[in-house]
Amino acid sequence: MKKLINAPEDVVTDALAGMAAAHPSLAVDLDNKIITRAGAPAPGKVGLVSGGGSGHEPLHGGFVGYGMLDAACAGEVFTSPVPDQMLAATRAVNGGAGVLHVVKNYTGDVLNFRMAAELAEDEGIEVAPVVINDDVAVQDSLYTAGRRGTGATVFVEKIAGALAERGAALSEVAAVAAEVNERSRSFGVALTSCTVPAVGKPTFELGEQEIELGIGIHGEPGRTRAPLSTARDITAAALDAIDSDVPLTGDLLVMVNGMGGTPLIELYLVYNEVHRYLAGQGARITRNLVGNYITSLEMQGFSVTVCRLTDSLTGLWDAPVDTPALRWGR
Amino acid sequence: MKKLINAPEDVVTDALAGMAAAHPSLAVDLDNKIITRAGAPAPGKVGLVSGGGSGHEPLHGGFVGYGMLDAACAGEVFTSPVPDQMLAATRAVNGGAGVLHVVKNYTGDVLNFRMAAELAEDEGIEVAPVVINDDVAVQDSLYTAGRRGTGATVFVEKIAGALAERGAALSEVAAVAAEVNERSRSFGVALTSCTVPAVGKPTFELGEQEIELGIGIHGEPGRTRAPLSTARDITAAALDAIDSDVPLTGDLLVMVNGMGGTPLIELYLVYNEVHRYLAGQGARITRNLVGNYITSLEMQGFSVTVCRLTDSLTGLWDAPVDTPALRWGR
Repeated sequence: MKKLINAPEDVVTDALAGMAAAHPSLAVDLDNKIITRAGAPAPGKVGLVSGGGSGHEPLHGGFVGYGMLDAACAGEVFTSPVPDQMLAATRAVNGGAGVLHVVKNYTGDVLNFRMAAELAEDEGIEVAPVVINDDVAVQDSLYTAGRRGTGATVFVEKIAGALAERGAALSEVAAVAAEVNERSRSFGVALTSCTVPAVGKPTFELGEQEIELGIGIHGEPGRTRAPLSTARDITAAALDAIDSDVPLTGDLLVMVNGMGGTPLIELYLVYNEVHRYLAGQGARITRNLVGNYITSLEMQGFSVTVCRLTDSLTGLWDAPVDTPALRWGR
Repeated sequence: MKKLINAPEDVVTDALAGMAAAHPSLAVDLDNKIITRAGAPAPGKVGLVSGGGSGHEPLHGGFVGYGMLDAACAGEVFTSPVPDQMLAATRAVNGGAGVLHVVKNYTGDVLNFRMAAELAEDEGIEVAPVVINDDVAVQDSLYTAGRRGTGATVFVEKIAGALAERGAALSEVAAVAAEVNERSRSFGVALTSCTVPAVGKPTFELGEQEIELGIGIHGEPGRTRAPLSTARDITAAALDAIDSDVPLTGDLLVMVNGMGGTPLIELYLVYNEVHRYLAGQGARITRNLVGNYITSLEMQGFSVTVCRLTDSLTGLWDAPVDTPALRWGR
């Protein structure tokens, strides 16, 4: 295992300390492994809390800031945060208007966020959850009942965060979060495995010319293994899987996301294939992201996430955002 | 070789087509492999042109836009662009106030930019070059007489671009570019090699527990090979090398840059070590970047670049920028 770390047990704390040092607009609680906006809570504003296992950076801590999340809880690598972290984050960002929990659909995350919500409500904090389940690859998985939550999380955090920033009520923020999740679909492909620091060896093995279609963000199995083919064919397989679930038409927000070890030149090459495929369907990409947004440590590969936009969602997407990993308009 | 490509000979063109599709604010000439700002030239504004081999994305094309570059020329992977490309880019962005060439110190780039400058001046376009040579690792290298140009290129493009945007004359823009280069130093470390698509096998081999200190951005040899150690020790080795060249004191702009295959969690962990080291020296990081800015395909590793700031340089760094890879304040 070759990693830029000090000791496997210190990876998350050391990286959070780096986040704190790099971004004075964030307040990082190293003991509880919580990142909040400096100055939280904002009185009268709905708070947004997300979190999950580490190893997916910039998700979630890199999305804390104006127009997006108010707090993120970091678990150990590929391990759910605990309810106490989520409760502490919920308290920290409660400005009296309630708190939205953005939860990726993995069993540990769902159970722990549910427990944290109950504890928060016992304290008089109103909590609404949205569970993200956009990954069309598999129905159930190693860590999931139902579909996994992946790239749509970025879209939900951005769009619901924008609505909360405008002063909307918790019920409205929760409704738009659910709407974005419902209108979004993802599919991922791995060229290589990743290695969890505390484990020290690759999560899975792939042959020299083999890829995994429908990979999960923790390296959990996808739909099938296939020989490495062209970017065009691989992209078509990913988009065919999405299109057969929900037809890809109209105005789309598209993210071509790197898994952590994929160079940007390849991500732009894949984006070109996505653009070509969708143009052939008569769909139109009106907004896009190309880069590393929800990763799996050093895995090589990509995922593509598509959201069918409405005018209202486009407006919220375009609203100002100021976080370490997404920044525009401010 | 496992890459998301269609054919090795089409990698650069396919990726540029993806850039064009993703960023409507850019005009991409696929035949000449030039990226310019849409609407160039800006009358009366000094134009900034850079370029070099592909495989270092987002450098340079990802830095074309308001407050930074006016054009970038893309060579084949790890291969200098040709003078005709540089001349076409220079013409395209000449708004009558002259053009700055930002040239990384590699023999091919230097010769070709020099030839392009002569041809442009024959056409009555005033050109000033700045040659970037910030890498302290080796005095001469496989591709270089003198020091190599690496991370400082990002700082020069940002700061000189900001001054040009304010309407400064070519001599002033060239002077600040030279000043930033002079005040900046870099050092890189590789954990793995990269593979040039047209070659199909790794550029070099490293043992299972071996790293290369002082690596070049094309995988060319550095100072020494060493056993993999902790992030703290590796970071100290990089900063010791810089500090023994120019003492690290005062207010600093620091970039912790991923080589393309390094996960963000590790880059923040390295940033934490850089922060700790510099605090121990009594220096202060007042501005920073953490992420992938000048890469070497899928290489795992990082580089650290430090610029000793002045108030004037800090102001130019903070000025608005709007490019695919750097965006703030606008």
